[in-house]
Amino acid sequence: MEIKKGLEDVYVKETEITYIDGELGRLYYRGYSIYDLAEFSNFEEVSYLILYGKLPNREELNWFQEKLREERYLPDFIIKFLREVRKDAQPMDILRTAVSLLGIEDSKNDERTDIKGIKLISKFPTIVANYARLRKGLDIIEPDPKLSHSENFLYMLYGDRPNEIKSKAMDVTLILHIDHEMNASTFASLVVASTFSDLYSSIVAGISALKGPLHGGANYEALKMFKEIGSPEKVNDYILNRLSNKQRIMGFGHRVYKTYDPRARILKQYAKLLAEKEGGEIYTLYQIAEKVEEIGIKYLGPKGIYPNVDFFSSIVFYSLGFEPDFFPAVFASARVVGWVAHIMEYIKDNKIIRPKAYYKGEIGKKYIPIDSR
Amino acid sequence: MEIKKGLEDVYVKETEITYIDGELGRLYYRGYSIYDLAEFSNFEEVSYLILYGKLPNREELNWFQEKLREERYLPDFIIKFLREVRKDAQPMDILRTAVSLLGIEDSKNDERTDIKGIKLISKFPTIVANYARLRKGLDIIEPDPKLSHSENFLYMLYGDRPNEIKSKAMDVTLILHIDHEMNASTFASLVVASTFSDLYSSIVAGISALKGPLHGGANYEALKMFKEIGSPEKVNDYILNRLSNKQRIMGFGHRVYKTYDPRARILKQYAKLLAEKEGGEIYTLYQIAEKVEEIGIKYLGPKGIYPNVDFFSSIVFYSLGFEPDFFPAVFASARVVGWVAHIMEYIKDNKIIRPKAYYKGEIGKKYIPIDSR
Ligand SMILES: CC(C)(COP(=O)(O)OP(=O)(O)OC[C@H]1O[C@@H](n2cnc3c(N)ncnc32)[C@H](O)[C@@H]1OP(=O)(O)O)[C@@H](O)C(=O)NCCC(=O)NCCS
Ligand SMILES: CC(C)(COP(=O)(O)OP(=O)(O)OC[C@H]1O[C@@H](n2cnc3c(N)ncnc32)[C@H](O)[C@@H]1OP(=O)(O)O)[C@@H](O)C(=O)NCCC(=O)NCCS
Repeated sequence: MEIKKGLEDVYVKETEITYIDGELGRLYYRGYSIYDLAEFSNFEEVSYLILYGKLPNREELNWFQEKLREERYLPDFIIKFLREVRKDAQPMDILRTAVSLLGIEDSKNDERTDIKGIKLISKFPTIVANYARLRKGLDIIEPDPKLSHSENFLYMLYGDRPNEIKSKAMDVTLILHIDHEMNASTFASLVVASTFSDLYSSIVAGISALKGPLHGGANYEALKMFKEIGSPEKVNDYILNRLSNKQRIMGFGHRVYKTYDPRARILKQYAKLLAEKEGGEIYTLYQIAEKVEEIGIKYLGPKGIYPNVDFFSSIVFYSLGFEPDFFPAVFASARVVGWVAHIMEYIKDNKIIRPKAYYKGEIGKKYIPIDSR
Repeated sequence: MEIKKGLEDVYVKETEITYIDGELGRLYYRGYSIYDLAEFSNFEEVSYLILYGKLPNREELNWFQEKLREERYLPDFIIKFLREVRKDAQPMDILRTAVSLLGIEDSKNDERTDIKGIKLISKFPTIVANYARLRKGLDIIEPDPKLSHSENFLYMLYGDRPNEIKSKAMDVTLILHIDHEMNASTFASLVVASTFSDLYSSIVAGISALKGPLHGGANYEALKMFKEIGSPEKVNDYILNRLSNKQRIMGFGHRVYKTYDPRARILKQYAKLLAEKEGGEIYTLYQIAEKVEEIGIKYLGPKGIYPNVDFFSSIVFYSLGFEPDFFPAVFASARVVGWVAHIMEYIKDNKIIRPKAYYKGEIGKKYIPIDSR
């Protein structure tokens, strides 16, 4: 009997969605290199690819974009919830609850999983952007159906159209977060789906897991750390101190990558570009991040611990105007595509996910009445 | 490379909470036989046992009962939600959303996990009973702090005190549902907790998984089936027909038990007792269930497929006055104890639960611009 702690290296399914080469630091969606997709494609096309297994032709893409655009709007009861809920809540708690509320309304709906999935993929940005504005005391901005998915996301946040660099940075960042094989949140959503529970319940589980600081919450933690450090000269002492206290460097390390995460490589370029344009606090934070990267790799690289996706995405999201506690919810807005795709793939040939725990206590204890204990 | 489909026979952790002997059909909580606990103990004591690892002495039990009683009340925003939400929703969707809402309010709370857990254990019955009454157009009943956990649950449903048989049946049924080792919902809540996400998020994932008809939703399915059959004489044809169509008998079969589930054995006695007292429709349903049991075992027993906990619990819950779609939510009201206990046990020595998927597609495909596809 062997305990598979954390299910490290246990294969729970076959997949045709995503391949991570953890030794060489490469990532493929449906066989296409993430570098190509980030450079040449866009969020809508990559989402189609992940969900349906092929790059869309013009007609397929039109259909898909049309669907996505139609579904950006939130029903009144969600808007009401966002308006009435406390404004100091964690955005991931808001997103989890909003999806759970959508599930109540949609429970009699027997549309296909992909169609329900498209609704969620479309509505996540609206939930996130609306709450971000309401929290600042600003009114919400209706989605603009003329804009692309990523442009519209930023538009609903800013109230005006983002410039080209920001739109591209947003689009690339979302693409890089769309899927990552059997990560904890995707796996949580599969455990739920494997009981034949509904899609909303599965996605709620995905959000719940992604929230954790060891997973999608690490981008928020990384930015907090950069702020706490305060200036590039303080990085060395800070990191050494942290490591000698056995604390982790957030945004470093990965179960599968034992080398530099290719997503971090791409995000670093965008972080740099945006930070240089923006200047001020963000540029300082970028410089701190670069220094943390250098010192972190010096000490942790030999153990196979390198920057992961959350390390530089934190700077990108911040430059794009998201407050730090919103980062995991932006991450979720992309990862929902992967959750839906893996659920569709799994339930085609379902088996309930039900492992075991190894009992190491006594058995056959005698029940003693309370006054004799 | 081997695919561990459904994680069958994979051990994900050690535990000192629950032991299932699937060959002999025995179940132990913290080493105590479920038969003894069902006969001599009560919900509060068994919950303490599961959470803290020992049967409480008088003082410990008083403290625990006091805490549970204090926490039965729902904050106004939950009552408001229950009043305003549509009345034809699935109770599990309501419970999932209510817990998610509680998580928003409690997100800055850094109490111990067990203390937060007690709040949830206490509030689940109030959420369930309140929604059950509101749905019928009745007003909600405030919890009564003089009553035991199970009595109060039924009291909030009925509006008056349950008789002794019903209270005992409810209490035993809740005890039998408290924990069951690494079942899908407990595992879903652990996957979430393993990212260091919060307790509410983890419990929301548990509810999400329990909802599925292959898991906690099977009690609802079982009762629907008994109703659909209509009379004991029709059982034989119905079952044969179902099996020859490769459909499952809901409330039969289990990943671990390859023999009669000891919980079903106990529940059958209570189902019989209650059905005989109640007479009418319920007695007919019980007779149908007995016949399904007999025919089901005849055909499925040789494959190791026997009645499980959900088979007779359906009759018990129905006799106790719950409408069928509420059964999974009553199940959840007990299983939340197990979720909290397993989370506490797991995070003491945490490792993020992150398995792998085995990629079987191509890699290195060439990106082709859309108009050349
Ligand atoms: C991602 C992560 C959870 C993977 O965990 P894992 O595969 O279970 O690996 P473990 O947590 O068992 O770590 C293995 C070893 O590396 C160390 N380690 C892992 N990540 C580390 C980090 N970010 N900083 C410092 N040390 C780290 C651990 O302390 C452990 O050391 P030990 O063997 O001396 O005890 C882990 O790297 C981590 O916590 N990273 C920080 C959070 C983060 O960025 N998450 C986002 C991932 S995309
Ligand atoms: C509980 C359950 C999901 C366990 O599943 P599992 O360990 O993954 O087992 P499988 O689903 O792979 O089933 C194994 C075989 O038994 C059969 N089987 C399992 N449960 C069955 C049932 N209730 N009725 C008829 N056949 C059943 C399967 O069809 C399969 O047969 P095959 O090998 O000829 O294809 C399964 O027994 C089930 O679906 N039961 C009905 C739902 C239920 O009562 N759930 C509550 C559990 S407490």
